[in-house]
Amino acid sequence: MRRTYLTPNQHKMRVEKLCANLQEQDIETILVFNSKNVFYLTGLSFIPTERPIILIIHKGDVNFFVPSLEIDHVHHQVPFVSQVFSYFEYPDERHPMYHLASILKNELKLVPNRVSSEAPGAPSYWGYKGPNLEEVTGLKFKLLPDIIMEMRLIKESEEIDLMRESSRWADRVHKYLQEYTEVGANEIDVTIRASTQGSHDMITELGDDYYPTGFSMFPAVALYRGQIGPNSYFPHALSKGLVFKRGDTLVTGASSDVYGVQSELERTMFMGEPSKRQHELFDAMLAAQDAALQAAGPGVYCSDVDQAARQVFKECEVIHLVRHHTGHALGMEGHERPFLDKGSEDVLKPGMIFSCEPGIYEKGLGGFRHSDTFVVTEDGIEILTKYPRDLQSLIIE
Amino acid sequence: MRRTYLTPNQHKMRVEKLCANLQEQDIETILVFNSKNVFYLTGLSFIPTERPIILIIHKGDVNFFVPSLEIDHVHHQVPFVSQVFSYFEYPDERHPMYHLASILKNELKLVPNRVSSEAPGAPSYWGYKGPNLEEVTGLKFKLLPDIIMEMRLIKESEEIDLMRESSRWADRVHKYLQEYTEVGANEIDVTIRASTQGSHDMITELGDDYYPTGFSMFPAVALYRGQIGPNSYFPHALSKGLVFKRGDTLVTGASSDVYGVQSELERTMFMGEPSKRQHELFDAMLAAQDAALQAAGPGVYCSDVDQAARQVFKECEVIHLVRHHTGHALGMEGHERPFLDKGSEDVLKPGMIFSCEPGIYEKGLGGFRHSDTFVVTEDGIEILTKYPRDLQSLIIE
Repeated sequence: MRRTYLTPNQHKMRVEKLCANLQEQDIETILVFNSKNVFYLTGLSFIPTERPIILIIHKGDVNFFVPSLEIDHVHHQVPFVSQVFSYFEYPDERHPMYHLASILKNELKLVPNRVSSEAPGAPSYWGYKGPNLEEVTGLKFKLLPDIIMEMRLIKESEEIDLMRESSRWADRVHKYLQEYTEVGANEIDVTIRASTQGSHDMITELGDDYYPTGFSMFPAVALYRGQIGPNSYFPHALSKGLVFKRGDTLVTGASSDVYGVQSELERTMFMGEPSKRQHELFDAMLAAQDAALQAAGPGVYCSDVDQAARQVFKECEVIHLVRHHTGHALGMEGHERPFLDKGSEDVLKPGMIFSCEPGIYEKGLGGFRHSDTFVVTEDGIEILTKYPRDLQSLIIE
Repeated sequence: MRRTYLTPNQHKMRVEKLCANLQEQDIETILVFNSKNVFYLTGLSFIPTERPIILIIHKGDVNFFVPSLEIDHVHHQVPFVSQVFSYFEYPDERHPMYHLASILKNELKLVPNRVSSEAPGAPSYWGYKGPNLEEVTGLKFKLLPDIIMEMRLIKESEEIDLMRESSRWADRVHKYLQEYTEVGANEIDVTIRASTQGSHDMITELGDDYYPTGFSMFPAVALYRGQIGPNSYFPHALSKGLVFKRGDTLVTGASSDVYGVQSELERTMFMGEPSKRQHELFDAMLAAQDAALQAAGPGVYCSDVDQAARQVFKECEVIHLVRHHTGHALGMEGHERPFLDKGSEDVLKPGMIFSCEPGIYEKGLGGFRHSDTFVVTEDGIEILTKYPRDLQSLIIE
């Protein structure tokens, strides 16, 4: 099934799952600060500022504590919200946290020893400063910083559908990027042009099924980020407004935002027929990616997937050109735990989604890295990004 | 003078200023984690991931502790770097923080009681988890979370030039936004089209003077963010792919990235001749903004600037439609301390840069908010964004 957003009911099921988990720990309240976690649980997207926005799940009810500029926004976006508590503004004459303390004690009547929080207090963001929750409430909060992220590690089938859709648009927008790339063009212009066209396609074709979350400006993005020619040697180069030349090795990136879920697609391409060395390094990289994808599956150690890629690099005598691990989980965050890393002790489980992107980098020549998004299934993996990986498809004449 | 980037020497002067400040506290080392602070001090821009990147200023020397994928990137970007220490990858077989501990003790030979840090440990970002510095080093770190932000509150004349330039491009790209807005168009298409054109102008006209920092995808951005028609009632609406209709109240946004410095420009516009009520609320908002700008100047309390705007709203009998304070400082961060807020105890000082954006919001009709960027001077203020603020200029026929 093609799915481009989740319904309020699907969010409610996530809240229920969290509450069941809390109940096992004899906890009846949790305060959530992380904006991605708030969206994951409730579908509320907002612009994080100096003004704390706190999701308070209490005895199964979904409540919020928000600044006045967000009150109606919450009612509008979260149909199953129970109570919306508010403060006027930050810093204001009375610090919002003291107002929160009264609400927790007098309105919600929190019970000591049964309250938890993602963090000791609202995060210091964009100039916000404030006291810890324990300080203002006198209550003892059990810190559960990872409880929601742990849920997010295993994607439900609905979320895998969102990632599949995101991958489809990453493929599409990348096609424009390749098409528009030519000798003499500027990477910024090509990036914007491809992303514009891909985004236009996406909002036009999806129509009412397109649900903007506000997390990214372009619905679909394909970009250069400075990895052009010798500069592609820097694995995390940044856009420099470089101009394409014959002989350049290129490393690209593409994604799209489907209800906050973002796939990862990257390709190594060449401006014209590659040299012998470019060809060799491309082949080594592709063989390493193949080996890692072959190794991946349910029950496999993350470290073994990394080692599969590293083994190929060793055999090709390019292990000294490796600068990073083979991949990372992803979903609503660009990178998530666990990592396909030789030091990881984690195991791949059905529902986990990873990038697979072993890379090698040769000074003066450039970088060689494909990245594809795959999901772990009950009996193997499914690669969600389908863009051609073979050399011939990636030469720009 | 038109300035579009800073030189390594200007960064070195910031490091020296920080070191002088540390010396007064008898501190000889500081560890910096915040990526904006690292850029501010050294000019190093990087993509924050699960891999900690730490600036270590020690006895006046600029050192880094980075993952292997960033080693050459540091050398490339920071000509005055002293030593670049590195670890292979995170998580890796040995946690990078233990490697850092050896470096701090054996290579840099840190002296107990003379070391400080911005944070207790590397921030938990994109799946990173790690121990605190004190835990791994056995040293006592003095926490100085605000020391660099305090420097950043007062902008040097060079940084004010960057903001002036950023404001100039915000004005330019906003012109395209207004030009492309028409009945039946989709806000996402208009946003992308205007930002594309403005960014193209910017990279073309600035040529080699354009210095991309990688902080934003578009060099210049003008956008709608869902504040269209009745939806403009939500002060922090998010883009919904809305289509412009006659009679809509619009609230826009525009900025550009000039070496990491980003101005803020917002305008209230109307699709056709405004109704009596639209006219009234626009006039009240404009009068409030005028009053706040009049009130602002060196030595003035932030709260008095807010009160000046609120006084106008009271006189116009629309104070109940206010949802937020009058403005915030800005620079390399979208919002910074201090705030033009009735509860603030801060005073405006020469070199501080603020947004001035009193707003009112009427359900069913929409939002009314201009935002302009101004700098506090020795004897008043200078408004850096110059886009027309009057009603007649903001009616789209």
